[in-house]
Amino acid sequence: MSTALVILAAGKGTRMNSDIPKVLHPIAQAPMLVHAMRAGSVLSPEHTVIVTGHGSEAVASVAEAEDEKASIAVQEEQLGTAHAVAQARSALDGFEGDVVVLYGDTPFLQSDTLERMIAARAENDLVILGFEAADPARYGRLIMAGNTLERIVEYKEASDEERSITFCNSGLLTCNSQTLFALIEAVGNDNASGEYYLTDVVEIARNQGLRVTAVACDEAQTLGVNSRADLAAADAVFQSRARIALLEQGVTLMAPDTVYLAADTVIGRDSVIEPNVVFGPGVTVESGATIRAFSHLEGCHVSRGATVGPYARLRPGAELSENARVGNFVEIKNAEIAEGAKVNHLSYIGDASVGAGSNIGAGTITCNYDGVMKHRTTIGENVFVGSNTMLVAPVTLGDGAMTATGTVVTRDVESEALAVARAKQENKPGYARKLFDMLKAKKARRNKGS
Amino acid sequence: MSTALVILAAGKGTRMNSDIPKVLHPIAQAPMLVHAMRAGSVLSPEHTVIVTGHGSEAVASVAEAEDEKASIAVQEEQLGTAHAVAQARSALDGFEGDVVVLYGDTPFLQSDTLERMIAARAENDLVILGFEAADPARYGRLIMAGNTLERIVEYKEASDEERSITFCNSGLLTCNSQTLFALIEAVGNDNASGEYYLTDVVEIARNQGLRVTAVACDEAQTLGVNSRADLAAADAVFQSRARIALLEQGVTLMAPDTVYLAADTVIGRDSVIEPNVVFGPGVTVESGATIRAFSHLEGCHVSRGATVGPYARLRPGAELSENARVGNFVEIKNAEIAEGAKVNHLSYIGDASVGAGSNIGAGTITCNYDGVMKHRTTIGENVFVGSNTMLVAPVTLGDGAMTATGTVVTRDVESEALAVARAKQENKPGYARKLFDMLKAKKARRNKGS
Amino acid sequence: MSTALVILAAGKGTRMNSDIPKVLHPIAQAPMLVHAMRAGSVLSPEHTVIVTGHGSEAVASVAEAEDEKASIAVQEEQLGTAHAVAQARSALDGFEGDVVVLYGDTPFLQSDTLERMIAARAENDLVILGFEAADPARYGRLIMAGNTLERIVEYKEASDEERSITFCNSGLLTCNSQTLFALIEAVGNDNASGEYYLTDVVEIARNQGLRVTAVACDEAQTLGVNSRADLAAADAVFQSRARIALLEQGVTLMAPDTVYLAADTVIGRDSVIEPNVVFGPGVTVESGATIRAFSHLEGCHVSRGATVGPYARLRPGAELSENARVGNFVEIKNAEIAEGAKVNHLSYIGDASVGAGSNIGAGTITCNYDGVMKHRTTIGENVFVGSNTMLVAPVTLGDGAMTATGTVVTRDVESEALAVARAKQENKPGYARKLFDMLKAKKARRNKGS
Repeated sequence: MSTALVILAAGKGTRMNSDIPKVLHPIAQAPMLVHAMRAGSVLSPEHTVIVTGHGSEAVASVAEAEDEKASIAVQEEQLGTAHAVAQARSALDGFEGDVVVLYGDTPFLQSDTLERMIAARAENDLVILGFEAADPARYGRLIMAGNTLERIVEYKEASDEERSITFCNSGLLTCNSQTLFALIEAVGNDNASGEYYLTDVVEIARNQGLRVTAVACDEAQTLGVNSRADLAAADAVFQSRARIALLEQGVTLMAPDTVYLAADTVIGRDSVIEPNVVFGPGVTVESGATIRAFSHLEGCHVSRGATVGPYARLRPGAELSENARVGNFVEIKNAEIAEGAKVNHLSYIGDASVGAGSNIGAGTITCNYDGVMKHRTTIGENVFVGSNTMLVAPVTLGDGAMTATGTVVTRDVESEALAVARAKQENKPGYARKLFDMLKAKKARRNKGS
Repeated sequence: MSTALVILAAGKGTRMNSDIPKVLHPIAQAPMLVHAMRAGSVLSPEHTVIVTGHGSEAVASVAEAEDEKASIAVQEEQLGTAHAVAQARSALDGFEGDVVVLYGDTPFLQSDTLERMIAARAENDLVILGFEAADPARYGRLIMAGNTLERIVEYKEASDEERSITFCNSGLLTCNSQTLFALIEAVGNDNASGEYYLTDVVEIARNQGLRVTAVACDEAQTLGVNSRADLAAADAVFQSRARIALLEQGVTLMAPDTVYLAADTVIGRDSVIEPNVVFGPGVTVESGATIRAFSHLEGCHVSRGATVGPYARLRPGAELSENARVGNFVEIKNAEIAEGAKVNHLSYIGDASVGAGSNIGAGTITCNYDGVMKHRTTIGENVFVGSNTMLVAPVTLGDGAMTATGTVVTRDVESEALAVARAKQENKPGYARKLFDMLKAKKARRNKGS
Repeated sequence: MSTALVILAAGKGTRMNSDIPKVLHPIAQAPMLVHAMRAGSVLSPEHTVIVTGHGSEAVASVAEAEDEKASIAVQEEQLGTAHAVAQARSALDGFEGDVVVLYGDTPFLQSDTLERMIAARAENDLVILGFEAADPARYGRLIMAGNTLERIVEYKEASDEERSITFCNSGLLTCNSQTLFALIEAVGNDNASGEYYLTDVVEIARNQGLRVTAVACDEAQTLGVNSRADLAAADAVFQSRARIALLEQGVTLMAPDTVYLAADTVIGRDSVIEPNVVFGPGVTVESGATIRAFSHLEGCHVSRGATVGPYARLRPGAELSENARVGNFVEIKNAEIAEGAKVNHLSYIGDASVGAGSNIGAGTITCNYDGVMKHRTTIGENVFVGSNTMLVAPVTLGDGAMTATGTVVTRDVESEALAVARAKQENKPGYARKLFDMLKAKKARRNKGS
């Protein structure tokens, strides 16, 4: 059976106290909406419809970046969850499979829960996701009779006996598309807040004699994010899980609590991650690499045996081959550092390639920007770049070339040649003393004048 | 009614194991004494008297820096809390308002607690601050009869029934100035330690028929700091509260536990603070700014839309305008970075101004110190400073000027001019190879010789 | 009585999911095996025998680096703990003292526990180390009759009454060498896994009428490390203890949880450690020094009153004298920074000495590597090194010398002389504008062409 995801993402999230739409706030550096989309992707949905409202354009743009086939349905007014789902109807025109309704602010849903909901559809027309609440508070209670969900009772209308039930409604459901939209048409808004509640489809379905059930998951999966404190807590839960997963995969984290991971960080077995390392999105570290303290990696690839940091910044497009070495106060952007090459100190290597076995001296800078355009620097194999060399791109250093300390390289250097550009050193005897004396006298005069 | 604060700050704090007076140890980068002074400032006190003892000069200097009108009363010998308060008498000579006695090592006191104490004075002559102790241990018990504080019973002298009381004495009190000093005169030191206890004024006041009551606050407010472990725990409590407050104000803290705040840090709504950021005193970040990982800010101002870090160090006097960008391994001190200007890599900008839209190349240094004096660098708008430019201050670059990579600028550069100072690049064919061979031969000889 | 340690270190540690032998995984930057060896060293053992198996060579090399007199006994096949101890027999040939059996993956053992085991030997032939288990789970129970250990009952064979016992077997023991090896000879492998269990010596000893007892320690000391999660937890326990110890010694840790310590870190009283500092092995910080945020120290010595960081990296051989100052984005390796000398910004000082009172300008680099060999730089007292000075080693700057900004120093500079090597600054009026116009036109053509 083919499926379609409908993800509700229209809410403002007033308690977030933000101009940014709620579902775009990130957990582990990916927007909550993306977490929901990824959880749903396990069902290989034929359609994905994002129902947007507040900040619709921004939400649509993130959704489409994650999945170019995602449809956007705009809910102009927020008239309730049933109304929100109804907006997806035209995007699913003619679709006859199952619809799964998810929420863009419920980032902890696990894929297997969705699979269990789909499986339960085989014997039921409508499947609700429930959870055992530790503190049921004011959640709606799921009143079961065997496997049948008889009805959902809201806290306010529940009897004492019903209130003692701890199996509660998460709001997620799955149902045949045609059936679902028909049920939603029957939902009214004759209630205190004048909203159309998706929950009401349960009663309508039961009245029509449809088979309705509820599948259970643990409460943590259904937690929504409503405030920035919730968001930070959700991030912490993500981090904790991701760290434990890395430990189990055989990664050494010297101080796991100080390593900050992205949703897509990949680290190989027997790699060592020292304390205080931050991973942005898109990082792969192979087995047996070492990421030293205070390093920051984004969009890069670190090969087996390479060593990074401390204080190394790898930006998108940094590609370190085996046994490469990037040291302290070094920034690498859009550059390959080939096997065994070293960039150890205080350097900026951007839009460049550094050949195998080359050694880049301290203070080297690839001058890749001329104020208007960016240009590439190409450094061959076994090149020795002297300290404080400025490589004014576009420029190429041939294999085995060398640059003298302090050289500004503006022309290509052929293989095995030495490039040098340096004024002659002159020592002026006694001049340092004279200069100091002069400056001190000047200062004294200035202080006197003031 | 006018009030005077008397803050007891004479203790050595033996368990701190420090040469620094106890009340000068910091929480969130402000000395504990300053926290107490700020809590008391809600009362707009007419006088603030700091009773000093150990390290009196250092304590006085901090107190006066916080409030230039603060008086210092030196307690030469530590003969007890009543004796300490008595030292404030001459500083308050002629003052007829209320005295509030605080402690310099009780940094959690909330302003509203002081206001409630003052309010209770309307109906009472002497007001003691009490708290419900989770574990009353050996605190003095407050024996109440209705709203009247009948007496304080020290643990040692308490009956079993009295020991079961959990309402305990914090040591803080407020009383009319004249009354308080009169009561204190009656306090004796006929006890095991031979000290004059402030607590004894309760019994004396009751014997004189004065009205005495106790106001309650939660125990956390009355916690004193006695060891460095207490200090660290107090700092952690402060950090936790300050982070929660920022989240509620709409600031995104990706990993709140890794952000270290100062007592006066201000951050605007929808700003993003990445993991591992340290705020020193005196920082204001406007709305919608981004502070990236591993940044360190002190005494600076970051405007809306500006981006800082990762690995940026903003020192006192750094002033970033809207959409300015300070990148990695960059230090800014006493310098304005105007709208949209960029200092992206490995630079030191001190005692300078950088005009709007200017781009400062990697490795640029303002040489502000000549060994004797500091000088300013002025960079106009839309200037392109080439990589590794040395700006020997005092020096000015006009609007639209440019410097060639590696230039040492010692003279002003007029608007739209290019400054260049560079030796000609010479490529010596085959010379790199010869040099390597020579060095290797030298090394071989050296190793042979050893 | 002389003692010998036998440390079992042959296990693979399958759950570590690692190619590195289990006992070489580090806690606080020292391999677990080294922690066990250091705990045992309190007994001043005459012999230390490490029983290796998986990764024997690597384990032996670490053991010998820690104690050059350690013997290695290889257990070719892992046939059980009794079999492992038996491998130590030939290394202890002729030794008649006590043997203490420890485990290389039990890093929390305290020295005084070993001393109590040795003390108990006075009245007993065999002493087992036991512990009160919070959750005895499937540990072997120690069945005591007064001070006599009657037998050890494995969980599977225990009666309900025996299962209710919470005093459990840690596996550590001490016994006379000759007696122990005789007992071990009698151990069989007639059990489900076909292994020789060291535990069986208890029953054999009792059958021979030997006196057997058990000494108790707290459970935490006996915890083994079996997974990387265990390892991380063990490291966290170590860190927590070490931080508390520093606080008690009078060190200020502004945010203790963010300071990562090595097993041998020494920090003096009234030193201040800011948040996010990492200590590698071999660091000593004297009293009254300040280590600012984001600093990384390894194998170095920081004297009284010195200030380090933020963002300072001190590598092995860095030696800072009193009141020296190493600032941000500065790396110091194998170099002395004498009293009051300053290296404040963006510098690399390696294989060098900097004399008292000297000031090293921003962007200074000691070019210590010529591609083949390392050379030293010597800087005298009160030298002023201008910004972006390249010191091409070997080179010496005399006392009171000065270098001009941007100078590449290849020859020695005599005392009080000024070294300068600089191309003349030329300002080309209007040229910046022309260049920008040209580049923009070029970009426009390029974009058109594409």
